[in-house]
Amino acid sequence: MSHQIHFQPDNVKIIVEEGDNLLTAAANAGVYIHAYCGGDGVCGKCKVKIDQGEDGVTGPPPGPDGFRMACQCSVSGDLVVSVPDVVKKDGQSLKRKPKTTRAISARTMSELVGDWHLDPPVEKRFLTLDPPSINDNTPDLQRLLRAIRKGCYDCVEPTFDHPQLLQELPFVLREKNWEVTVLMLRGKRSEEPDRIIAVEAGNTTDRLYGLAVDIGTTTVCGMLLDLNTGQIMAESTAYNDQIRYGEDVISRIIYSQRPGGLAKLQEQVVRTINKVIEAVCKSVIISPSDISYIMAAGNTVMSQLLLAINPKYLREAPYVPTSSQMPLTRAASIGVYAHPSVRLFLYPSVASYVGGDIVAGVHACQMHKSPALTLFIDIGTNGEIVVGNQDWMACAACSAGPAFEGGGIKHGMRANTGAIENFHIHPETLEPMIVTIDQAKPCGICGSGLISIVSELLEAGVIDQQGKFIRSLEHSRIREGKDGHEYVLAWGKDSMNGDDIVINEVDLDNLIRAKGAMYAGYLTLLESVGMTFTDLDRVILAGNFGAYIDLERAICIGLLPDIDRERFYYLGNASLTGCQISLVDIGRFRERGDVGRLMTNMELSENPRFMEHYMAALFLPHTDMSLFPTVKATLERL
Amino acid sequence: MSHQIHFQPDNVKIIVEEGDNLLTAAANAGVYIHAYCGGDGVCGKCKVKIDQGEDGVTGPPPGPDGFRMACQCSVSGDLVVSVPDVVKKDGQSLKRKPKTTRAISARTMSELVGDWHLDPPVEKRFLTLDPPSINDNTPDLQRLLRAIRKGCYDCVEPTFDHPQLLQELPFVLREKNWEVTVLMLRGKRSEEPDRIIAVEAGNTTDRLYGLAVDIGTTTVCGMLLDLNTGQIMAESTAYNDQIRYGEDVISRIIYSQRPGGLAKLQEQVVRTINKVIEAVCKSVIISPSDISYIMAAGNTVMSQLLLAINPKYLREAPYVPTSSQMPLTRAASIGVYAHPSVRLFLYPSVASYVGGDIVAGVHACQMHKSPALTLFIDIGTNGEIVVGNQDWMACAACSAGPAFEGGGIKHGMRANTGAIENFHIHPETLEPMIVTIDQAKPCGICGSGLISIVSELLEAGVIDQQGKFIRSLEHSRIREGKDGHEYVLAWGKDSMNGDDIVINEVDLDNLIRAKGAMYAGYLTLLESVGMTFTDLDRVILAGNFGAYIDLERAICIGLLPDIDRERFYYLGNASLTGCQISLVDIGRFRERGDVGRLMTNMELSENPRFMEHYMAALFLPHTDMSLFPTVKATLERL
Repeated sequence: MSHQIHFQPDNVKIIVEEGDNLLTAAANAGVYIHAYCGGDGVCGKCKVKIDQGEDGVTGPPPGPDGFRMACQCSVSGDLVVSVPDVVKKDGQSLKRKPKTTRAISARTMSELVGDWHLDPPVEKRFLTLDPPSINDNTPDLQRLLRAIRKGCYDCVEPTFDHPQLLQELPFVLREKNWEVTVLMLRGKRSEEPDRIIAVEAGNTTDRLYGLAVDIGTTTVCGMLLDLNTGQIMAESTAYNDQIRYGEDVISRIIYSQRPGGLAKLQEQVVRTINKVIEAVCKSVIISPSDISYIMAAGNTVMSQLLLAINPKYLREAPYVPTSSQMPLTRAASIGVYAHPSVRLFLYPSVASYVGGDIVAGVHACQMHKSPALTLFIDIGTNGEIVVGNQDWMACAACSAGPAFEGGGIKHGMRANTGAIENFHIHPETLEPMIVTIDQAKPCGICGSGLISIVSELLEAGVIDQQGKFIRSLEHSRIREGKDGHEYVLAWGKDSMNGDDIVINEVDLDNLIRAKGAMYAGYLTLLESVGMTFTDLDRVILAGNFGAYIDLERAICIGLLPDIDRERFYYLGNASLTGCQISLVDIGRFRERGDVGRLMTNMELSENPRFMEHYMAALFLPHTDMSLFPTVKATLERL
Repeated sequence: MSHQIHFQPDNVKIIVEEGDNLLTAAANAGVYIHAYCGGDGVCGKCKVKIDQGEDGVTGPPPGPDGFRMACQCSVSGDLVVSVPDVVKKDGQSLKRKPKTTRAISARTMSELVGDWHLDPPVEKRFLTLDPPSINDNTPDLQRLLRAIRKGCYDCVEPTFDHPQLLQELPFVLREKNWEVTVLMLRGKRSEEPDRIIAVEAGNTTDRLYGLAVDIGTTTVCGMLLDLNTGQIMAESTAYNDQIRYGEDVISRIIYSQRPGGLAKLQEQVVRTINKVIEAVCKSVIISPSDISYIMAAGNTVMSQLLLAINPKYLREAPYVPTSSQMPLTRAASIGVYAHPSVRLFLYPSVASYVGGDIVAGVHACQMHKSPALTLFIDIGTNGEIVVGNQDWMACAACSAGPAFEGGGIKHGMRANTGAIENFHIHPETLEPMIVTIDQAKPCGICGSGLISIVSELLEAGVIDQQGKFIRSLEHSRIREGKDGHEYVLAWGKDSMNGDDIVINEVDLDNLIRAKGAMYAGYLTLLESVGMTFTDLDRVILAGNFGAYIDLERAICIGLLPDIDRERFYYLGNASLTGCQISLVDIGRFRERGDVGRLMTNMELSENPRFMEHYMAALFLPHTDMSLFPTVKATLERL
């Protein structure tokens, strides 16, 4: 259930979900409330008054002064909330800066992914066979094929090539008196023969499931679909067990070169997939062997590791993958819990660092079939970028570095409990409002927090466009640290482990490099086809990270281009969505191989234009402010 | 080197090979020589005189009387040999009956199998790839495919679906600086894509081998072929290690139903195949992994056991095989020593008891493409019969019983050392001439010996057409035994183990049933299509047994039809020949699946016409003597 919160005196309204935290809601709405402790209730600063809808608040009762701590309140009804002004010594209220925050387009995903049909690549058919007799002792398989072809005179005969199925066939046919259900995988092209992948006794047509799997470097996400209805039955996510052998793809490649390393990494990712399978199957009480096929996508390193294909040459120039098309694999053959005949499909890769996850994402949003010029972005340690439309597509990976995942940032961390994920700064007092994940005491900064912090510091004039602190500012939170100047986000007394949590100039530098690489990537790809940002009809953000990005702030720091906000879309786990659609719609399934072939990879690492663009982008938001007209206007207003 | 032997006074000439035994040669020529001990040199009866060509004989020198023992002589030159007459007490020579013996047509196999082309279904291509660069970092596989397609614009792209090949590919390509040899399996049909089954570093096009395997119930025969030349490089035979779990297919099926039995039987036949592979590879010093593909044929039980497909229902009415087409299997997946990508093809079966070996034999002799009406026969425990031509083919199995393999015969044995394989009887003295395998003392009777014995006894008037001894005959070798009357082939003093070796009326009855079942099978099949024996253009004998059959004698007892002797052919191990040709000629390879489909199986076991024909055939040669005009004439002359 949704509720409206109307914040005063800012006169900002925001729609939140039942149970949302009031402090978080204020931060998302761009409403500044003093808050030092991240939401843990200890600093006692985040006082608000409920003007209307007192019953719509769950949490400790208001104090004698009528105020409540916003961080302790969860929302259960429509509210009008007053945030007290900060009052100056002279009795005047401090000015409140009107904020613009913007989550990325809430327009439905269906607008992006288009229509799809419930017509899965696997189908079950219930058949009643004539029992054999001495005058008709046709072999079991040929009897089955005859029943399949019955009444279909020009059908191509299905294929059936897995010995294990033949081993079971005589018994399955006789188990329920020659009543069987055949599971068929339809041909790669419509003129190709279907393939019988399982035969089950009796009528099992009501059980037809597919599994979509996004195999990420960090997490593996699975989605169980009922292919009779197209419904999502269950979803599950697990950390990729390979993590213990390296955080990122490069360290995984290095580990794979050790004796036994490749096998170990394969084993770990298979184990993770099996965890996901067990979880989704358990939640709907089916057996893993009821899953009829598996569609997976992962980056090139993950794909090669899953199949134990040595990724050595992915890392060495000139960065050659072993194959773009991944061989069709029987899931059970690599240890995945599945019926022995069940196929595991992997989306094809384009290049060493533009993998099947990106192809699946592009496939999900159908940019290869749309006239709209689209910039598709997946931000992470390796940012992947695709530009194009139905006529052409160019793609590239840029090694943004791990800043957006907390790497190379002094107090950087993944988006876990206690990570600062939202931040506001009071424009005059320069005091922070910090919001952490799970409203815990702060212990670090995650990617979305970092973007918030940097854009807020920039807009508040605490740092300059080079990411340096304004030396002339004197403030208790700004100080000289080991790594240059820093701003104290949380004092040790308010933090989880008692240390001051800061952001320093080295952190700022790393962030600028990361966002600069992404931006230079967009520009290089666009330029290579003679286009500019203004030609873009759509910018699609894929990946988990995109969900938490505040669009205005990401543009403010130059991570995203400064174009019409209506053109931005958030697609979520596009890779999983691509797999999901391919599971359900044979038309999409059959075209998936084409998507990768339509994408032309550009290696940026040794591209001189990329280097130029990169150097120019090492500025907040950019050295060429004409590229960021709205940011320019905002900064000039300060 | 061949030599001619001219036997006198019979005036019979025979061509023999260098080193052949003189007694065996005489027996094959139909020349009677007294010989009790099988050729061991102990009875000292087989005296002959070399009239011309003394230098052409190797063996002990002649005795003082100028005679030599034929069984101790081997032939090394043209000879004229005198066989002394048996002289009656009155000084007159006993009459010598002119004999007709006839090995089956010596016409070359090529007349039967037709032309074939050296154009194997696998081919190797040596390629030099462009090394990758930053401007061309196409994935390894796609780079390889590009090189394969080079200069071939409308080629279908080869497929490549085995993960293990991809695992090796990056290293193989780089091992010899982007020079590689691809091994491709050509498409099942010409319009189907080729399939890459191996990639080897450098130029290995000179090494291209294929293995033909006939998987018999008793023996497994392998033939290694150089596919670059079509030459046979090596052959090897091993007893099927399954034998310890049962002599015949029925006992194997029974064993397979025990816990672990199926796996055990699969393991044993795989082990046998591996022995054969090791033997042929060792003899030409190649590795099993140099074999590029394997074409095998076996009866339906052998085929199913090889793939661990339970043969239970093959034995239970209505005798339903699991599949006629056997799934394409990676040889290594069932434990066969081979490169992991190498395919093991199995000829399709037609019915539970008409298997891939018969299909391969029919395929070898191309009866499915010839206008000549052909009777194809494989005599054994399960006799298989195929009748037809290019327009239609009918086939059947008849359970002849094990008589031809020595089963159910008191002194029956397989064709091993000491088995009586040839036999003549003196028409007046009724004394035997016995020839054993390896010229050892006799220890039993093998199939060809049995046919010789029965036909000789019949023609000599020792037994009647019902297979009963003529009670009025008085002879030291004819006596009443435990199982009715019997004829002593060898006295205990001359035999290997000291026992008298006999043939009795129960043996005769079993032989009559066996040959009766075969003959009834021919007749039932022919009748079902409105034909008679006189319509037959060819009778082709396949299988090991056929090599040793004396045509006249087989016709005499009614095992083979009494038609023009010129129409009989012996094809040898037709199953292995079929595999061999399919290995070498893609045209033949591609049509092999059609052969089985063209064959219509008839179940004889419950066919009333078969039973009638069978009852009528329980006679030597048959109750209807008009079916055996030449035998009738011979018997009437007596």
